[in-house]
Amino acid sequence: MANPTAAMLVIGDEILSGRTRDANMHFLAGELTKHGIDLKEVRIVSDDRPAIVAAVKALSDAHDTVFTSGGIGPTHDDITADCIAAAFDAAIDIRDDARAILQAHYDKTGLELNAARLRMARIPEGATLIDNPVSMAPGFTIGNVHVMAGVPSVFQAMVASVLPTLTGGAPLLSQTLRVFRGEGDIAELLSQLADRFSDLSIGCYPFQKEGAFGANIVIRGSDGARVDAAMTELAKELDT
Amino acid sequence: MANPTAAMLVIGDEILSGRTRDANMHFLAGELTKHGIDLKEVRIVSDDRPAIVAAVKALSDAHDTVFTSGGIGPTHDDITADCIAAAFDAAIDIRDDARAILQAHYDKTGLELNAARLRMARIPEGATLIDNPVSMAPGFTIGNVHVMAGVPSVFQAMVASVLPTLTGGAPLLSQTLRVFRGEGDIAELLSQLADRFSDLSIGCYPFQKEGAFGANIVIRGSDGARVDAAMTELAKELDT
Repeated sequence: MANPTAAMLVIGDEILSGRTRDANMHFLAGELTKHGIDLKEVRIVSDDRPAIVAAVKALSDAHDTVFTSGGIGPTHDDITADCIAAAFDAAIDIRDDARAILQAHYDKTGLELNAARLRMARIPEGATLIDNPVSMAPGFTIGNVHVMAGVPSVFQAMVASVLPTLTGGAPLLSQTLRVFRGEGDIAELLSQLADRFSDLSIGCYPFQKEGAFGANIVIRGSDGARVDAAMTELAKELDT
Repeated sequence: MANPTAAMLVIGDEILSGRTRDANMHFLAGELTKHGIDLKEVRIVSDDRPAIVAAVKALSDAHDTVFTSGGIGPTHDDITADCIAAAFDAAIDIRDDARAILQAHYDKTGLELNAARLRMARIPEGATLIDNPVSMAPGFTIGNVHVMAGVPSVFQAMVASVLPTLTGGAPLLSQTLRVFRGEGDIAELLSQLADRFSDLSIGCYPFQKEGAFGANIVIRGSDGARVDAAMTELAKELDT
């Protein structure tokens, strides 16, 4: 049976302007692979309501699960929750359970739960909260979309909360062979191997190192014995 | 006048599986910002023909310029050129000028221009070649889509070839103020500032450092005097 599929939506001008290098996508990709969920697509859009709404709808329709990161803080540029509500045609308002979590947190830290912070308790109707052990303000799940924070430590904690609730497939296993040969020299061999092991994915990723060209050949699949067999054959044919 | 818009399409299973962390997007984002072109959207898709064709069409229709990275090498998983041809309904075959570039390169290095390497001379009809001073195999431009390699050194060289041919707008300028205050404390102030300086983009990016919460406040715009004015006002109100 095919593994469930996932998509990710990264929301943030700071990534698109080149100011910040996204870290959440790489983290999520690794976690999903371990969990047997195939990440099929990532989109990065700016803090723009129509762009966010359209992307959420498209990804939610096309994949089993969608993860978003960014735009759920207390400032004026945090518009994700409202966009998600619009995408699901759901009402959105401050919700008591989310407000209680924030109230308890700010009571403890002696800060005021002001109007800006209360924005973080705005949750679309019908959503369930995602636990945030780092900074308390919750994420939420509505339909097949998990809405999470952009700060990496919080994003990672939320992924840890959500992943055990999802049904994964067989974890994707991979083995890599690094060769110092041009891609063009091994392409025919790889193509034949890919034909013989059509149940596996065989990728070739070239690199340049101190003027020399080489490639990482990666064989992926959920059946470890098959991955082993293909790698053994590859190594033999390449005489490594 | 608004700046031209751009989108990027990253093609590659190795990014989506978490094996490789993409570097080209961050590089391109920075270059476009300097050049006054607004990167509005990035999509990352796997080595899957329907997914690539659909993404190319959607991004090409929605933006002034599109950049792709990955999938133009000699191996069986390099399917980008064929997908781009399909998206533009263009014929594709080995082209003499591209073949001549490869032939000269392999003659010099003493390697054979075999069938696999000849795949890199497959160029859609009507495209113009993009120079590759690093490893010679050219990229190409068709319509508003620039098709480039995934290896970062090659990608960067190709961006350097393409960018001077594009009409940019006013470079996006930015100033950042780093404050060790919770977002919730400064949100109201930022919202008011954003209203007064509606020609600028004011973003707030929280971070956590050794248990303390802070934020980078970034003010962006193409008019340096306005960015200065907003930053001066912000600093005064925050009393930094």
